[in-house]
Amino acid sequence: MLPPGLLPEGLRDRLPPAAEAQATLTATMMAVFAAHGHERVSPPLVEYEESLGSRLASAQRRELLRFTDPVSQHTLALRSDITGQVGRIAVTRMAAAPRPLRLSYAGPVLRVRGSQLAPERQSQQIGAELIGLDSPAAARAMLALAVEALLAAGVPDLSIDLTLPTLVADLHAAGLPAGTADLPTLQALLDGKDAASLRAHGASAYEPLIAAAGPADAALARLAALPLPAGRLDAVAAVVAALAPLDISVTLDPTERHGFEYQSWLGFSLFGAGLPFEIGRGGSYTLLHPDGTPEAALGFSLYIDSLVEAGLGTTERPRVFLALGTPQAEGEALRAQGFITVAALCEACTPQGCTHIYEAGHARPLA
Amino acid sequence: MLPPGLLPEGLRDRLPPAAEAQATLTATMMAVFAAHGHERVSPPLVEYEESLGSRLASAQRRELLRFTDPVSQHTLALRSDITGQVGRIAVTRMAAAPRPLRLSYAGPVLRVRGSQLAPERQSQQIGAELIGLDSPAAARAMLALAVEALLAAGVPDLSIDLTLPTLVADLHAAGLPAGTADLPTLQALLDGKDAASLRAHGASAYEPLIAAAGPADAALARLAALPLPAGRLDAVAAVVAALAPLDISVTLDPTERHGFEYQSWLGFSLFGAGLPFEIGRGGSYTLLHPDGTPEAALGFSLYIDSLVEAGLGTTERPRVFLALGTPQAEGEALRAQGFITVAALCEACTPQGCTHIYEAGHARPLA
Repeated sequence: MLPPGLLPEGLRDRLPPAAEAQATLTATMMAVFAAHGHERVSPPLVEYEESLGSRLASAQRRELLRFTDPVSQHTLALRSDITGQVGRIAVTRMAAAPRPLRLSYAGPVLRVRGSQLAPERQSQQIGAELIGLDSPAAARAMLALAVEALLAAGVPDLSIDLTLPTLVADLHAAGLPAGTADLPTLQALLDGKDAASLRAHGASAYEPLIAAAGPADAALARLAALPLPAGRLDAVAAVVAALAPLDISVTLDPTERHGFEYQSWLGFSLFGAGLPFEIGRGGSYTLLHPDGTPEAALGFSLYIDSLVEAGLGTTERPRVFLALGTPQAEGEALRAQGFITVAALCEACTPQGCTHIYEAGHARPLA
Repeated sequence: MLPPGLLPEGLRDRLPPAAEAQATLTATMMAVFAAHGHERVSPPLVEYEESLGSRLASAQRRELLRFTDPVSQHTLALRSDITGQVGRIAVTRMAAAPRPLRLSYAGPVLRVRGSQLAPERQSQQIGAELIGLDSPAAARAMLALAVEALLAAGVPDLSIDLTLPTLVADLHAAGLPAGTADLPTLQALLDGKDAASLRAHGASAYEPLIAAAGPADAALARLAALPLPAGRLDAVAAVVAALAPLDISVTLDPTERHGFEYQSWLGFSLFGAGLPFEIGRGGSYTLLHPDGTPEAALGFSLYIDSLVEAGLGTTERPRVFLALGTPQAEGEALRAQGFITVAALCEACTPQGCTHIYEAGHARPLA
């Protein structure tokens, strides 16, 4: 027999006040998305594995928790990501909705196993998607939306790291000499920031990409020397310039591709000071409609568990004990003032855990 | 290949505005629980099947969606109920918290298959539990809490149906003559309101229980003729009397046991006018601590999907289109006034879907 209260590895209970903080942070940020016109959709926790998996990179697909549906005998899976589900909704049930389509979502996601750094198998994902546009203006608007939501949640000292997931492929296709390195080799060497091997392959033309990682303005200046497709650098520069009024640190890591396999020209990660992991990521991508028509889109996901861990989203409300027989209306008046009321339900009930006690018509603080 | 957008039977997307309504109803009712001192806990979606199943009646246990954990090789299951998880928390991680302990929860639950009447396999369950008391005062407080939450959610014409799940067993144990009928037979005949068979078994002493179903005051008067354990009827009468100020219909169906297998002296169901299913249920029950110590508890769960279906929880907010180049501060001012702002992100973007357009410093309604 299992010990009572034992949970499977990587799964846990959220207790007070963390559970409330998670709900508060979710509500705060979803309210920001709603105020900017993003309407909530809520896809199911479980879908056909084939359908969920088709919208994931292969490494992520292996992380799906799967089971056989006793009803249909199909393989189902628990979602590990909501973005793909929202994309599915956008090109099927909401294909006829006006564009750009603004959607948002919040809910739990699960994966087979956590990592050493992040052992949790269940986490809370929220996000916003803009379907039908992936212009610099769209990128600016969605990044500003993520920043506004995270500021509303109280995240300190935000920073954004931009990446250009298709940059290396674009340069390679444009004929920038790569010597003996094919595209996957080139990408692997740049991922490893391995300048020596680039030179050994005769691909030193790509070396400036390594040096270009850093504060966005300086990085853009370095990239200007490269034969990029027309307008590409202007688009990135426009996003960087548009972010300036937000007064947050913006860096550029032009060759970073890890986890951005599904992004098109722009990807980004969001960080907060003192928060151990990236707290959000997003970028531009292409949705495929059932008839094969592509549609541009841009969005982001935020992972709020690390914000909860950091103590964000908790509010201290006074908690007042009402003795047996306190009239209903007096409790109502206290709640209307923002008090939590704890009504005695027995003679032996005590104000333990309360900050105040209601006496003679007043909430008196307890020592 | 599966058609794009196809979901497994019994699972579905919630689109605008239903997804937002579900979140709003959840938040509205959870705020009521919080104002009365119930603190949120959030157990995981997945637990050991053995652990989840041990807190369910056998019929419910068969409804768990199970799978083998690739990490531990144990059988895990998706929760079909949150109440049992909250009970587990109360007697393990929160065993040392002051009593009575007030907890609340909200989240999705899943089951193997829906019924013909309710085909959904995923639903949203919220609820509140009081751990450490199951007195009439506790029952009154928790029923009043459920009613306040449902009224805040806008549920019309509430009614409560009380049941006394252990009544027949109590009467049988007290020696009320049952002729040739043993307790399970007696309960089955009363479930079927089969007066003729009761008489045939020589158990006509139990016949008044059938007639006692109906408005609570009249039902209590009929039950008064039966040799009930001392104080039992007084407890029920106290609950009924305490509910009178709520001005809602209260009925008593003393022998109804379906779905109340885990309840002790009191069970209840909540209904709303025009809502096809019961919208909540609860009652008193006994928690077992790991050392075998029993603890009285009382609580309820609300199922909000039928409230969403009925159109509750939706709010119409004006949606104003901001032309390209509208200053940031003007959008902020509109949002502060309660407007949803939809910023144009391209020359071709139109106010389609908006209720207003921002022009010359004013939000002008669109025809």
